[in-house]
Amino acid sequence: MKKIKVGIVGLGRLGRQHAENIAFRIPNCELTAVCSVLKEEVDEVQKQWNIPYGYTSYNEMLENKELDAIFIASPSGFHCEQIKQALTAGFHVFSEKPLGLYMEEAIEVQEAVSAHPNQVFMLGFMRRYDRSYMAAKKKIDNGDIGEPMFIRCYGLDPAAQMDNFLKFAKANYSGGLFLDMSIHDFDLARWYLGTEAKEAWAIGGSYSRSEFDELNDAETGAAMVRFENNAIGIFVAGRNSAHGYHIETEIIGTKGSLRIGTIPERNQVVVMNETGVVQECYDGFLERFEQAYLSEVEEFINCILEDRKPSVNVNDGVESTLLGYACKASFETGNLVNVQDLSIQLNEKAEDTPLLLT
Amino acid sequence: MKKIKVGIVGLGRLGRQHAENIAFRIPNCELTAVCSVLKEEVDEVQKQWNIPYGYTSYNEMLENKELDAIFIASPSGFHCEQIKQALTAGFHVFSEKPLGLYMEEAIEVQEAVSAHPNQVFMLGFMRRYDRSYMAAKKKIDNGDIGEPMFIRCYGLDPAAQMDNFLKFAKANYSGGLFLDMSIHDFDLARWYLGTEAKEAWAIGGSYSRSEFDELNDAETGAAMVRFENNAIGIFVAGRNSAHGYHIETEIIGTKGSLRIGTIPERNQVVVMNETGVVQECYDGFLERFEQAYLSEVEEFINCILEDRKPSVNVNDGVESTLLGYACKASFETGNLVNVQDLSIQLNEKAEDTPLLLT
Amino acid sequence: MKKIKVGIVGLGRLGRQHAENIAFRIPNCELTAVCSVLKEEVDEVQKQWNIPYGYTSYNEMLENKELDAIFIASPSGFHCEQIKQALTAGFHVFSEKPLGLYMEEAIEVQEAVSAHPNQVFMLGFMRRYDRSYMAAKKKIDNGDIGEPMFIRCYGLDPAAQMDNFLKFAKANYSGGLFLDMSIHDFDLARWYLGTEAKEAWAIGGSYSRSEFDELNDAETGAAMVRFENNAIGIFVAGRNSAHGYHIETEIIGTKGSLRIGTIPERNQVVVMNETGVVQECYDGFLERFEQAYLSEVEEFINCILEDRKPSVNVNDGVESTLLGYACKASFETGNLVNVQDLSIQLNEKAEDTPLLLT
Amino acid sequence: MKKIKVGIVGLGRLGRQHAENIAFRIPNCELTAVCSVLKEEVDEVQKQWNIPYGYTSYNEMLENKELDAIFIASPSGFHCEQIKQALTAGFHVFSEKPLGLYMEEAIEVQEAVSAHPNQVFMLGFMRRYDRSYMAAKKKIDNGDIGEPMFIRCYGLDPAAQMDNFLKFAKANYSGGLFLDMSIHDFDLARWYLGTEAKEAWAIGGSYSRSEFDELNDAETGAAMVRFENNAIGIFVAGRNSAHGYHIETEIIGTKGSLRIGTIPERNQVVVMNETGVVQECYDGFLERFEQAYLSEVEEFINCILEDRKPSVNVNDGVESTLLGYACKASFETGNLVNVQDLSIQLNEKAEDTPLLLT
Repeated sequence: MKKIKVGIVGLGRLGRQHAENIAFRIPNCELTAVCSVLKEEVDEVQKQWNIPYGYTSYNEMLENKELDAIFIASPSGFHCEQIKQALTAGFHVFSEKPLGLYMEEAIEVQEAVSAHPNQVFMLGFMRRYDRSYMAAKKKIDNGDIGEPMFIRCYGLDPAAQMDNFLKFAKANYSGGLFLDMSIHDFDLARWYLGTEAKEAWAIGGSYSRSEFDELNDAETGAAMVRFENNAIGIFVAGRNSAHGYHIETEIIGTKGSLRIGTIPERNQVVVMNETGVVQECYDGFLERFEQAYLSEVEEFINCILEDRKPSVNVNDGVESTLLGYACKASFETGNLVNVQDLSIQLNEKAEDTPLLLT
Repeated sequence: MKKIKVGIVGLGRLGRQHAENIAFRIPNCELTAVCSVLKEEVDEVQKQWNIPYGYTSYNEMLENKELDAIFIASPSGFHCEQIKQALTAGFHVFSEKPLGLYMEEAIEVQEAVSAHPNQVFMLGFMRRYDRSYMAAKKKIDNGDIGEPMFIRCYGLDPAAQMDNFLKFAKANYSGGLFLDMSIHDFDLARWYLGTEAKEAWAIGGSYSRSEFDELNDAETGAAMVRFENNAIGIFVAGRNSAHGYHIETEIIGTKGSLRIGTIPERNQVVVMNETGVVQECYDGFLERFEQAYLSEVEEFINCILEDRKPSVNVNDGVESTLLGYACKASFETGNLVNVQDLSIQLNEKAEDTPLLLT
Repeated sequence: MKKIKVGIVGLGRLGRQHAENIAFRIPNCELTAVCSVLKEEVDEVQKQWNIPYGYTSYNEMLENKELDAIFIASPSGFHCEQIKQALTAGFHVFSEKPLGLYMEEAIEVQEAVSAHPNQVFMLGFMRRYDRSYMAAKKKIDNGDIGEPMFIRCYGLDPAAQMDNFLKFAKANYSGGLFLDMSIHDFDLARWYLGTEAKEAWAIGGSYSRSEFDELNDAETGAAMVRFENNAIGIFVAGRNSAHGYHIETEIIGTKGSLRIGTIPERNQVVVMNETGVVQECYDGFLERFEQAYLSEVEEFINCILEDRKPSVNVNDGVESTLLGYACKASFETGNLVNVQDLSIQLNEKAEDTPLLLT
Repeated sequence: MKKIKVGIVGLGRLGRQHAENIAFRIPNCELTAVCSVLKEEVDEVQKQWNIPYGYTSYNEMLENKELDAIFIASPSGFHCEQIKQALTAGFHVFSEKPLGLYMEEAIEVQEAVSAHPNQVFMLGFMRRYDRSYMAAKKKIDNGDIGEPMFIRCYGLDPAAQMDNFLKFAKANYSGGLFLDMSIHDFDLARWYLGTEAKEAWAIGGSYSRSEFDELNDAETGAAMVRFENNAIGIFVAGRNSAHGYHIETEIIGTKGSLRIGTIPERNQVVVMNETGVVQECYDGFLERFEQAYLSEVEEFINCILEDRKPSVNVNDGVESTLLGYACKASFETGNLVNVQDLSIQLNEKAEDTPLLLT
């Protein structure tokens, strides 16, 4: 039985986790090459896990003909270019979200993927592979809650990471709260509701730290979306969750409703002490989505081996990015945004340069 | 020690509950008179609870000089007129919400209350007297969650009552989802956030029953509100909650958050059976707010006895009604509504007739 | 309609609560007389609530022929004598638990009640009137969990009250952990399982405070009981619950199970802060059983008015006391105790003096 | 870096899961050989996962000098002999619990392990490697709940598996409820409390299915244990849990308490429908302890690589088995059992044959 040989680019915190999973926890694949601009990261990983090839140049890695697949976990600003290059070089490609920092990049990736129909391309919307989210999907598809017509999504990063984020965001273009944080929720909404966004209004503010204002971003924000089938979407995102990493989703249907992650308890331990009854919460995405990060890559490998396409594809990335842009535009202008109109406008702009909304 | 003598108008389901509370469960007051257009209701209650006076005419009850206070639990369409009459007749007045069916009526009541500064007027926003909501208020005032800057309110009536509602709404003007259901939540939001609404966008639909469309109303709807201090409000209301009466409120502050009623379990019993772990839910407002319906009236009586004004007053009713109208207007037009502009417009209209939005 | 006129003896914390309920919150009864050895308590209550009669002598109160019923909320050591006197004087009697401090007293009360079959006697096992416990009973009777064959009961007093208890217990005979705390649970077990205890083993210790050893009592203890139908009972009691007053009951049946009070949250508020997700707990029995303390007295009054007997009677007190003695004997001797043998032994002793187990 | 080469015996449901983990999900080890008496199982696994060696004879596998470690997942009756043989052959050994079917076997394994001090021996008390149980241990060691002095453990198998169990138990000696089910809990109690059992009383019955009586076993049972430091242990085990696989543990200390698994919800999904609020539960040990089954083997491999011993060792197996025997003896005789006396008795018997308690 063939083992898929994977080369990974990006060895940061999430990249390292992916690399370890690929190396040790997924049947039928091997971590054959690692790439990072930081030579010490490459050396460390190669030595620690006995990885055959190490690169500081992405282009050199792409020349390694032993590889079957490229796994992109580099900073977001590189995704678009690296995806296109890897596809052109003939590899199957898994990329962390987003497709790119700008809508134009998302469209470029979409075109590149279309141009290579025989290669597997998968985008890291890992929540679709989380067991709880999968169980919810199954129940919805099974009709357990009737016709879904409302979704509420919370994506709240822990306050403990706010300083880190601000440091990062001052030095890099993060995309802003809705494109960076809510994009996973936009994908979930589309997945569960089976429809696309029609109108969006987004508001928010810099409630605890004025730096967000300076970045023209929101510390905490909310978007309300009307979908094409008139379903309602509520999306709340933030960087200041006191109790930890809070990812919560609710879907209301005509016959019942589902909640996923109402209380983001990190394990099954409940403490009873003079404070009351206490449950500790997840500290971040790696802890919350450990299983999903593993399962999505298993699915990627299986798609290659079984010559089929994953259910989450480049169009999911493009549509979610478009909704992210709509929310960003609404937040920045204060206006209600028609998503279809924005899409046309962005497509026109994509033919020119420079970019519309940054 | 003086006992406050109360006359109640309206002996429907909630009126009957109030009457019983006034008669038997509140210190220092007596149910001295009952009034209903249905003579059999009056006779039944008089006989069952040994009530001295019974009336089928509200005006006659107002002539009873033994009474100290009038309690209004009649259909909403009568509130405005009955409040004004009782104030004019010199009584303290407790009225169930709303102040009236139209914004103009709310403003009329506001003027009438202002004209009788020595009489206690209290509006039945009972949630402010629910222990859980009071405990949350105390924590917020205590700074436990920092500066509150986000509120999410769910007000979902049980699906089991949908037929009853539709029958009622076809025969009567209910005010629509946002004025009828969300008004309690608008008051809570103002109370917890300490600010007034600035802009609102409301959407929704008739997802399970087309009759709501015919009524120009929503079965389930959501409004997003930007408050004057830039706080965010999310208000979800509906008539189709499969699991029961679901009243849930979340307040997020800069240092923590609070949830009230996340799971609307009706008691402390958990059942474990082949279905899983199951908690039964409240079947309606009388069950959920039993304690609050009692406590608000205790407060009303105490205000009279102690010659002070309740913290929930006519202005709370007017402002919440205004936000309800803004949501109604937004839902009907599809547009983002500026609440202040609407207020000016409504005040101008209030001087003329007819009404703007019905 | 007749109003039952009640005289209460005992105006301590629980007595005061009962007095207020009788005076103001229960239809068809009046608080006509109050009695306490402390004159200032009597004066205060009479004045505050406008109570016609006040006594510092119990015997004098029993001579008041206006009264219909006597409510006994005095210290446990007086219960037996006061019950007997009130029954002899022809009154209906409600007594707080226990029937007495000693098994002999329980038996004496049982005989006195038998001798006055036309008077209502009710014992304050208030949990049977708590809505959650009632809902559980209804489900069991309905067959929802099949045949009940296991019960686990926790009765844990808050650590915050431990000092108070120790001060009390050093000056008074409390009965010890199993007779003082678990007796409510013994009654619940008998009620839910429909069987009597056969064998018991009880252990425990003085884990945080050596004073319990000096009192020959346990700070925390557990008893396992085999019932006559071979059902299993687990009873845990303690004085050192860090998080508050924790009353929890679980019944396992052949087709499912029920839990009541798994997490003793005091209200519907959940706080999310840097500690995690936190629920505050009940601080004591008055808060937890507020509704039950009211409902049991409503039932007592209704039994008098409707000339029927309450479902919780003197035999429930006797049997629960017997099981309490069995656990006490087991704890003190370390042996497995046969409850029936102990009963015979105690009955024999009851004919003599002095008492067996103190 | 060396990879530990593992041969596994037993390819049943749990064995297959272990085999897959060793083959694909644990760094630094390889599944080099598989062994089962069923040739088709061996062939299937070898082919599916490309395993170099397959055996139907355990002795033949032990002759494979490429192997470093033997993993025993065969039926319980083979454990003792296979452990001894593997140790004698010089391998590191991981064995599923129990050490053997009889106390004598546990003691034999203990002696064999002592005789091979340089080989790693690890027993599959996987709960110690479950994240929730580990987090609880850390909190206890950190003093968060003060001195632990009470433990309550539930080990309830799903009713859906009762038929399977009965079929198995009629054909095989299972050890009975306390040795087969509670043994994990006995180990947890010893681990958390840091003490050994002193006295035990165990009761139970065949509440839903008379076949348990015929097997001289209990469908549901409970044991209360007094530990040497006077701590209290409550152990409930059963085969008839309607809602699923219910493993719950509570530890009460002098300053607070901990619960693990209060509600055995299988994921983060909550369903709200006409039944109420519903959480689905785990269907069995493979689902509940998936992570623990993986982590314990990672620890085994790391112990070999790092030349150290695991914290769970053969003595943990022996002491837990002893407590299991005490409960079994108590259940069968109805008496309170002194664990130390039983130990002496069993050791004396172990020198003779036949066995005491079977």
